Amino acid sequence: MPAPVDPTIPHREHPRREDDVIERIAAIVGQRNIPARERHIGDDAAVLAPFAGEVVISTDVAVLGVHLDGDLFSLEDLGFRAVAAAVSDLAAMGARARGCVVAVSAPAGTDLEELHRGMAEAAILTNCPIVGGDLSSGRDVTVAVTVVGECPGGGAVLRRGAMPGDELLVTGPLGRSSAGLRRRREGASLDDELVVAHRRPWPRLSEGQAARGAGAHAMMDLSDGLGLDLHRMADASGVGFELVDVPVALGATFDEAVSGGEDYELLIATNDPSRLRMVFLDRGLRSPRTIGTVVANPTERTLHGAAFERRGWQHQW
Amino acid sequence: MPAPVDPTIPHREHPRREDDVIERIAAIVGQRNIPARERHIGDDAAVLAPFAGEVVISTDVAVLGVHLDGDLFSLEDLGFRAVAAAVSDLAAMGARARGCVVAVSAPAGTDLEELHRGMAEAAILTNCPIVGGDLSSGRDVTVAVTVVGECPGGGAVLRRGAMPGDELLVTGPLGRSSAGLRRRREGASLDDELVVAHRRPWPRLSEGQAARGAGAHAMMDLSDGLGLDLHRMADASGVGFELVDVPVALGATFDEAVSGGEDYELLIATNDPSRLRMVFLDRGLRSPRTIGTVVANPTERTLHGAAFERRGWQHQW
Repeated sequence: MPAPVDPTIPHREHPRREDDVIERIAAIVGQRNIPARERHIGDDAAVLAPFAGEVVISTDVAVLGVHLDGDLFSLEDLGFRAVAAAVSDLAAMGARARGCVVAVSAPAGTDLEELHRGMAEAAILTNCPIVGGDLSSGRDVTVAVTVVGECPGGGAVLRRGAMPGDELLVTGPLGRSSAGLRRRREGASLDDELVVAHRRPWPRLSEGQAARGAGAHAMMDLSDGLGLDLHRMADASGVGFELVDVPVALGATFDEAVSGGEDYELLIATNDPSRLRMVFLDRGLRSPRTIGTVVANPTERTLHGAAFERRGWQHQW
Repeated sequence: MPAPVDPTIPHREHPRREDDVIERIAAIVGQRNIPARERHIGDDAAVLAPFAGEVVISTDVAVLGVHLDGDLFSLEDLGFRAVAAAVSDLAAMGARARGCVVAVSAPAGTDLEELHRGMAEAAILTNCPIVGGDLSSGRDVTVAVTVVGECPGGGAVLRRGAMPGDELLVTGPLGRSSAGLRRRREGASLDDELVVAHRRPWPRLSEGQAARGAGAHAMMDLSDGLGLDLHRMADASGVGFELVDVPVALGATFDEAVSGGEDYELLIATNDPSRLRMVFLDRGLRSPRTIGTVVANPTERTLHGAAFERRGWQHQW
């Protein structure tokens, strides 16, 4: 969208033209090997070769100062995390990533190239090319990433399919990201292993596709923490749960594991956990960890027999 | 994305939980008749039934105070325009709309329901359902809309296909949106016909598909105005142009027609304009208007033989 009405945003003395800025950014985020049938950055829209099966789409917005502390982390971190968070939504459906588009607004003087370098890094590592984008002025640095993917053969895994008797599993120990944030606040360097877990979260794309292939009943990512997301899955499925374990990552606290969020591990419900483990093993993936069982009574939500309260961070308006 | 680091955004005394807000918004934007194979709002990602042919995707960001003056227009207008602008990018490729996702950030106290009513209105009118979204706190009201569509049989129309000798056409007279903004600033009511053209721009989806069907060589929407967008098409195609006419809308000035932008009329280059007109006629669409011819020399860019300068608004950083 163009033609501003009231450009209240101060400009630099030698402002750069939008087309020039976009060209420089395109050089950062653009792919080297674009398939012959595809057209990415540079047109009104991107064109992708036909998808196999269902089309999966999700959007995620990240705001500097809300989702990431600009004093402790860089714009590159913001960009990486924004793309990783969106890709994780594809993982949570068991989809294969096909591409993403990035919409950025930022004040004059923002290092847009640094921001886009972070996005490009995540896009390359997750094999989810940035195929288009848009730029605007604005007071906040805001990044909205939209990902599209495909489920060959169909069967995207929803939240609402958990059945009584299903086993509940997670793809890894929890709390690393939250612990990393705490350590960074305490002065740890950007290279600290847990701080890196916060700066460079890893979407579980391979695990999600493996779980879909293994016939999982329900799945979601733990972006807002087990304490909130497990309740969301239970709500959507109309069930309860009995937890026997919350796997706490090395260096994290129990609270961080339950309500920290942003680990992007997957939560899976299945009636055939041995098949799930077999498929994970076959694909060279870390074995998922059982955390409990789905029960029919939707009000029964426990850990070691005690109530497991809904908790985790939410935006407020 | 979740778990804020430093929630500097002031909260209301009785803040509403994110899940509650999302539920109320979902009731506004959600479709009544979701196809049985599809899953829209409420999961990690939306699932759409398989697309026919190429997948077309584009994202557009709109910021209140940059793209729309909040003193003269409403949040509903911002929402409508944001969706319409994104859908227009599908029109510009000749694609059929399949759905969109909306990422919103806004400060506490923003009437998110009003904003989403505007988006829902545009989504219904353009038959491009809102299938998902995300919400965050932020200082600006920012809306990033991502649309996905399909080109059955392939052949999305790019900017770069214009050939020397092609006729250049537009789908309607230009400058209405810009004239409407001027009239609103002069005190015209929100019901004024030109003001409505600014508040409720109409993406030319049917015209775009007709042009693709008629074998157009190149196409784009005039979101930034003919004075900028025609040069972009010429740059992408490595050609020049000789304009013989700029159709100025009733009530608009020549300047508004050339550099106003946001009309979302389509610019089309074709070597078979009579076939184009026939397909438009056959589909009950207003006949496109010839504005000039494509020439081989990329430095020759004229209107009535005089230089046609590149002009139009761009964001600056």
